[in-house]
Amino acid sequence: MKIVVDAMGGDHAPAVVIEGVVEALNETDAKVALVGQQDRVEEELKRYSFDRARVEVIHADEIVEMHDPATTPIRKKKNSSIAIGIGLLKSEQYNAFISAGNTGAVVAASTIILGMIPGVERPAIGLVIPTIKGFAFLIDVGANTDPKPEHLLQSSLMAGVYAKEVLGRDKPRIGLLNIGEEASKGTDFVKTTHKLMTDHLPNFAGNIEPNAIFDGDFDCIICDGFAGNLVIKVSEGLMESATTVLKREIKKSPVSLLGALLMKSRLKQLKQYADYTEYGSAPLLGVNGIVMISHGRSDAKAIKNAIKAAKREIDHNIISRFKQEVIENQ
Amino acid sequence: MKIVVDAMGGDHAPAVVIEGVVEALNETDAKVALVGQQDRVEEELKRYSFDRARVEVIHADEIVEMHDPATTPIRKKKNSSIAIGIGLLKSEQYNAFISAGNTGAVVAASTIILGMIPGVERPAIGLVIPTIKGFAFLIDVGANTDPKPEHLLQSSLMAGVYAKEVLGRDKPRIGLLNIGEEASKGTDFVKTTHKLMTDHLPNFAGNIEPNAIFDGDFDCIICDGFAGNLVIKVSEGLMESATTVLKREIKKSPVSLLGALLMKSRLKQLKQYADYTEYGSAPLLGVNGIVMISHGRSDAKAIKNAIKAAKREIDHNIISRFKQEVIENQ
Repeated sequence: MKIVVDAMGGDHAPAVVIEGVVEALNETDAKVALVGQQDRVEEELKRYSFDRARVEVIHADEIVEMHDPATTPIRKKKNSSIAIGIGLLKSEQYNAFISAGNTGAVVAASTIILGMIPGVERPAIGLVIPTIKGFAFLIDVGANTDPKPEHLLQSSLMAGVYAKEVLGRDKPRIGLLNIGEEASKGTDFVKTTHKLMTDHLPNFAGNIEPNAIFDGDFDCIICDGFAGNLVIKVSEGLMESATTVLKREIKKSPVSLLGALLMKSRLKQLKQYADYTEYGSAPLLGVNGIVMISHGRSDAKAIKNAIKAAKREIDHNIISRFKQEVIENQ
Repeated sequence: MKIVVDAMGGDHAPAVVIEGVVEALNETDAKVALVGQQDRVEEELKRYSFDRARVEVIHADEIVEMHDPATTPIRKKKNSSIAIGIGLLKSEQYNAFISAGNTGAVVAASTIILGMIPGVERPAIGLVIPTIKGFAFLIDVGANTDPKPEHLLQSSLMAGVYAKEVLGRDKPRIGLLNIGEEASKGTDFVKTTHKLMTDHLPNFAGNIEPNAIFDGDFDCIICDGFAGNLVIKVSEGLMESATTVLKREIKKSPVSLLGALLMKSRLKQLKQYADYTEYGSAPLLGVNGIVMISHGRSDAKAIKNAIKAAKREIDHNIISRFKQEVIENQ
């Protein structure tokens, strides 16, 4: 079992990626293949001590930049770390691919190189998000902005498996994100999807309103990629702006400043609660292989967590489980 | 000039509504018509001292409940405070209507009783939201979940006028809410709308990403009613859950608890920043009359603010300005 990591993906690559990989090596028994510009990768690796036998470095000349079109690894940069890294999954030796690089490029390359799971028409990105009770699985957060209701049903089936196998929920409650609880609420698209899920989805628990996302009463929250991306980006923007407002307020009085200092460690916990886009692991579901997408701003901890999540997916044979679930329910 | 207020609308009506009306009477020179069950309204009014000459009470026997269908005031409860209150705007004496009641019912009744502004096909609810620099105007937050691109263009024209006349922005920057900055990003609907706005909307400043909503660089943020409702409900849920997490963290250590106490007044400022759904005024644009919708949980301050906002709209002759702007740009 070997996990392929895109050494060149992310705002702080390769340094931060390799730092995260080393942390994962030291905390788990994972084997990793680092794909990227060999000399730069080797130079970074020199800075750490770890079990070198568990790391393979595979050279990839090109880098897909963040602003490159999604088709880049397929059309123009076939020697990029994304194209080569995903291609490795076609061999049985390599079992998962992780990248903090250009999301659109990873989605497109995974879809074309790996193909789709039979019965699944479109890929979807899931994200493990924090709730006041633990975690929930939000899907899709941006792969498919104009899905058909059938696509959401297919994602839901996989999400249920993911929640059970990877997040350990025995009977996951699956909700459809909508602006009202009643089946009659929302867009035509959501109403049609609601009906389809009622008829075909085991564990469908009805609509979930956006203000209930973080309550933790649902294990999986299903939506189109536009809505899901909106949810995570609004959360990001709100917490950032609220932090700015709070800092400004605190500076207005020395007493508040003292209070803030005393609370510092706890405020940090809150920040972590809110920074889920950076720390959460985001599996790309629907493609015929394990692919994890990390935020471009990922730090070493986020990379390490992605490796651990990928390892769990491999251990639970998640792709076979997806295939089985989709076949049984269609 | 007289502002009509639905005395029976909202979770704490009529008590809280009347408390807010009295506050507005004491802080402004507004004249108010309270519509609702006369005995209950009069009883509440007895509790306060204010200029009685500026308050008219108009009896309405029925109450539209929060769970009633949107068509209720038109079909079943024609003697409700919503139906009677909105009907008053057909007379020149009454110039605005405010309700914290059933939003769908207010939208439907306003549309049917008042009709639309020429050139505007659908109503849209705007909401004044906080940003780190002041305020922005988010529209639509829930009236029209399946709009056509043309509807968003029409709302944008009115939003620009609103930002200028009521919020005092000289040349309002108008942005289209999208999950990417580039014109090529997002759903087919958003892409078509982007093109339409580029061609026809003065002051169009391009796409705005959801994480930038609270930065304050845009004066108006345009979206469909599903997306807008998602934005405000996700914000609400995130801040509520973050507060829960913070309280839990604080209780873990006496030092943090002391810190929190010292910061209390500043944390309150933050809470107010986040509670904008309850305090913001939400004008219903597109209908041929001034209608303001308040959150069902509105407190007296929210009602008072809605009355002040309605007064500003009347003073600025907002409906005539909408009509002029829509005619000039079509």
